[in-house]
Amino acid sequence: MDKKKAFEELVKEIKGLKTDDMYLNDFFLTWEKSDDELKAVWDVADALRNLRERNISTKVFDSGLGISLFRDNSTRTRFSFASACNLLGLEVQDLDEGKSQVAHGETVRETANMISFMADVIGIRDDMYIGKGNAYMHEVAEAVEAGNKDGVLEQRPTLVNLQCDIDHPTQCMADALHVIHELGGIENLKGKKLAMTWAYSPSYGKPLSVPQGVIGLFTRLGMEVVLAHPEGYDVMGDVVDVAKKNAKESGGSFKVTNDMKEAFKDADIVYPKSWAPFAAMEKRTNLYGEGDTEGIKALEKELLAQNAQHKDWACTEEMMKLTKGGKALYMHCLPADITGVSCKEGEVDASVFDRYRDPLYKEASFKPYVIAAMILLEKFKNPAKVLEELEKRGQDRIMDIEK
Amino acid sequence: MDKKKAFEELVKEIKGLKTDDMYLNDFFLTWEKSDDELKAVWDVADALRNLRERNISTKVFDSGLGISLFRDNSTRTRFSFASACNLLGLEVQDLDEGKSQVAHGETVRETANMISFMADVIGIRDDMYIGKGNAYMHEVAEAVEAGNKDGVLEQRPTLVNLQCDIDHPTQCMADALHVIHELGGIENLKGKKLAMTWAYSPSYGKPLSVPQGVIGLFTRLGMEVVLAHPEGYDVMGDVVDVAKKNAKESGGSFKVTNDMKEAFKDADIVYPKSWAPFAAMEKRTNLYGEGDTEGIKALEKELLAQNAQHKDWACTEEMMKLTKGGKALYMHCLPADITGVSCKEGEVDASVFDRYRDPLYKEASFKPYVIAAMILLEKFKNPAKVLEELEKRGQDRIMDIEK
Amino acid sequence: MDKKKAFEELVKEIKGLKTDDMYLNDFFLTWEKSDDELKAVWDVADALRNLRERNISTKVFDSGLGISLFRDNSTRTRFSFASACNLLGLEVQDLDEGKSQVAHGETVRETANMISFMADVIGIRDDMYIGKGNAYMHEVAEAVEAGNKDGVLEQRPTLVNLQCDIDHPTQCMADALHVIHELGGIENLKGKKLAMTWAYSPSYGKPLSVPQGVIGLFTRLGMEVVLAHPEGYDVMGDVVDVAKKNAKESGGSFKVTNDMKEAFKDADIVYPKSWAPFAAMEKRTNLYGEGDTEGIKALEKELLAQNAQHKDWACTEEMMKLTKGGKALYMHCLPADITGVSCKEGEVDASVFDRYRDPLYKEASFKPYVIAAMILLEKFKNPAKVLEELEKRGQDRIMDIEK
Repeated sequence: MDKKKAFEELVKEIKGLKTDDMYLNDFFLTWEKSDDELKAVWDVADALRNLRERNISTKVFDSGLGISLFRDNSTRTRFSFASACNLLGLEVQDLDEGKSQVAHGETVRETANMISFMADVIGIRDDMYIGKGNAYMHEVAEAVEAGNKDGVLEQRPTLVNLQCDIDHPTQCMADALHVIHELGGIENLKGKKLAMTWAYSPSYGKPLSVPQGVIGLFTRLGMEVVLAHPEGYDVMGDVVDVAKKNAKESGGSFKVTNDMKEAFKDADIVYPKSWAPFAAMEKRTNLYGEGDTEGIKALEKELLAQNAQHKDWACTEEMMKLTKGGKALYMHCLPADITGVSCKEGEVDASVFDRYRDPLYKEASFKPYVIAAMILLEKFKNPAKVLEELEKRGQDRIMDIEK
Repeated sequence: MDKKKAFEELVKEIKGLKTDDMYLNDFFLTWEKSDDELKAVWDVADALRNLRERNISTKVFDSGLGISLFRDNSTRTRFSFASACNLLGLEVQDLDEGKSQVAHGETVRETANMISFMADVIGIRDDMYIGKGNAYMHEVAEAVEAGNKDGVLEQRPTLVNLQCDIDHPTQCMADALHVIHELGGIENLKGKKLAMTWAYSPSYGKPLSVPQGVIGLFTRLGMEVVLAHPEGYDVMGDVVDVAKKNAKESGGSFKVTNDMKEAFKDADIVYPKSWAPFAAMEKRTNLYGEGDTEGIKALEKELLAQNAQHKDWACTEEMMKLTKGGKALYMHCLPADITGVSCKEGEVDASVFDRYRDPLYKEASFKPYVIAAMILLEKFKNPAKVLEELEKRGQDRIMDIEK
Repeated sequence: MDKKKAFEELVKEIKGLKTDDMYLNDFFLTWEKSDDELKAVWDVADALRNLRERNISTKVFDSGLGISLFRDNSTRTRFSFASACNLLGLEVQDLDEGKSQVAHGETVRETANMISFMADVIGIRDDMYIGKGNAYMHEVAEAVEAGNKDGVLEQRPTLVNLQCDIDHPTQCMADALHVIHELGGIENLKGKKLAMTWAYSPSYGKPLSVPQGVIGLFTRLGMEVVLAHPEGYDVMGDVVDVAKKNAKESGGSFKVTNDMKEAFKDADIVYPKSWAPFAAMEKRTNLYGEGDTEGIKALEKELLAQNAQHKDWACTEEMMKLTKGGKALYMHCLPADITGVSCKEGEVDASVFDRYRDPLYKEASFKPYVIAAMILLEKFKNPAKVLEELEKRGQDRIMDIEK
């Protein structure tokens, strides 16, 4: 009864949101979406989860493909996308570039159409090279939109950005939904302090999309967002501008500092995570472009040495004591580099990580629902009505013989 | 209303075709099938597409597997097969020979049965070695037929040839369906001139199955088919004989020439594409059999040099001017080697390719439907009634809340 | 009508079995399960096959994932698991450790949860290292059980052991179901002699899970089980103890001998198969742990030489003559090393293997149903009622237009 009511309230809320522009459109960056649209993603995600918890099938497709295109290794995101597709009734078909002819010099435009004859959605992860990933996604989206207009494709496959060089929207939207649940509602985020900080890791070249995505999203929610990193570890300037503008509009604040302690001080939420300096990633992208193997090796060595100068940037128990009541919510996109567990010295103390294991796993658990919500909002003009219809249909997800 | 009528006419036509022998049978080569059977594939493909365009689900299977077995890399065909299976309700399971124990010396017979306990259809691509691919497919088909008769397999998995050393039936049937649509009906193909010509490519060893499939199929449709290639680039003699016989029976013609211009002259359709000389492919097959790496390298060098003597065999703007009104329909199985785009000098001028991009993509778009039609005709005795039943059932492919 | 009655009898039998403890539980080793539970697996497997033979869909899930995690190559088991999942309506998602971040030092606990948000079942094959495979499975099962209790996972994914270092329950349960069918009922196994014997193979390091699984399971059925192997080829001592205890309780017998002839003498069933000595596998596991490549190479050489001393351990026509009436049922988990076919000298004569090809394939055909039965019993409290409901629902597996 409780769950049923919660569902009805979600649907009511969704009815009040303007989501028309999401229909037959793609999801690239959170800051390209309106507040209503972001809220709709969270609400639809919650509603889909609510139905699943009540053993109500949410299959809105009776055949159709979800294409996944990963240009980097991935367990979590791969399984999240597959789970989201399965939840809605789409079958996942992986475009493994090793197996396929993409490597043989095909144009993006052609391949995008060739794999999309039955595709309702395409999920892409391409986060390795600065200036490339997001651009590549746009190329694919434009290609299939043209294909649909030209009568090649019966349907317009829409795109979900599963991580690019600029943003990691499915991760950050899941992160935010986690915080919304932890704090008991979106309105409770206002005025809370979030510290997105760099942290030491013995590996190098970690993508910037998470810190960028976090400052680009949480500044919209009226929060006091602080980005902290050692000198030289700047993120993309454009995204810093986005964060500043967002903060101004939402009544929150945004600040960059080179002092981790300042960021942690009285923070309600901390998100300590390693990343590579934007300038270094840009350099690396160029070196790859030039095929300069020696240069890449030299850069790698340099970056590791640079990282090693900042081993004090770690989420230790001492650091956690600085946070609000010593009890800030610790967040991470996982996997974390845990000191003494996955590496000698890393991003976070084992005792801190252990204490937050449950919330961290819950944080991750929102991702499949967030992706499914994005797909649903891209494919249906009237999401609220679709959800109502699913509840009314009441198809068991697992056959229930007790009914 | 229009689409509904078109559907009804297709169903009516299918009712008049004799397709009994396709039931629980395989699809190896187009010239092993009757005219009625080929027409049935095109009609069923059109009918399935018609239903999908009207958002009517065509799932005829409620569980069941489609096994794909690729012995060569592939994007298009892999996705086409996966799309076809999905359209009908089968889940694709890939037999990746790298991952499996096939490499460990298992017999074909055993593996074929072991993967087929729940298989309704098996799609195989094996085009690399002359005299092997088609033979291998027959081995698999015989193995599972025996397995079914002996009570090992509950159902008889039927086979779809996704490209062998002799024919590429799913490609050529899609090509033909494209032409049928472009020319406004199968009867309009009669008397039209089709030039299947060799074209220069900087790669070597491209399979012969497309030119062979094209001359083996289009000669059945009353067309004037010309096969043109430089001296030494002969295709399989048996297939040339098939083409001659077909032409005689259909009231068309078939001619082989070593003059590309002669082929293009007044052609209604041109299909310029690189392939390796049959004799060289036979030699290569033997060298592989003997494990003669040195011999293979030498042959490769020789073939590339031989190709390079024929760079003038290209589908240039000049050549296109020779065709009927300068406006022949340009066809290709894709990906094409485009001069100045995917290679320095290739099969076709970039401007020609660009002008035909849309029709080329449409040509490709028929493949999933052609494969699905083959499967449907292999698994159902009365395809017309199945299609009617699907329309009557009227299950939404994507949930339609506006109804 | 016959099949319908057979189904009703199976359902009636299942109703009399106590299977409550299987619900939301895992399947690791057959000897951890009660007699009722094993019988339930066989009966449910037969009932699912019965329904499929009558073209009745057995999809009990309307979305949901079956995760497969293979730490060793596999065709048969991979396809069996995929088939079982498909039969019940689950989509398979492979966790390929190459593609994923498992290799990057993630903890088992974390990965297990991250891949399980929509997972109803997890199938694992991990048979390479002594003392590791089964332990790893328990780690995964405990991780997802905790995840479910902590609210991370909406459902409790249950586990099916697809082969570990101790047992190969899906294989051995399929083997047993085959024997039950061959002998016309489980009660007819009592007093029959089964010879599980070592046999020569030119490869080394084959897992012990099959011989161990066979002696651990068939001793429960009142059979006279003989384990025969050359000196030094002992299996895990703990499993020998299990077999002894089982035999005592079931009124059968269990005996170990170093004489293959003694084992074959008057045997009703023979299962000749190569395996590595337990002590050698333990040693190899340690060498791998220490990264001692030289030691591994030396051990490999030693083991092959040791094997070569026992080429007379083969299932020849001569040996078959020793069995009951010369007509014992020959069994193998496949693929077998067949003398003169897959190797020069191997486990079995080609003529013997050929004579039993059909029964061998049937033996294998039970595996998908056994796996599906395990899943069904793990996910439903009242399996008999679920089966009745499926029959009543009567959903066509393949659309039947003749009805």
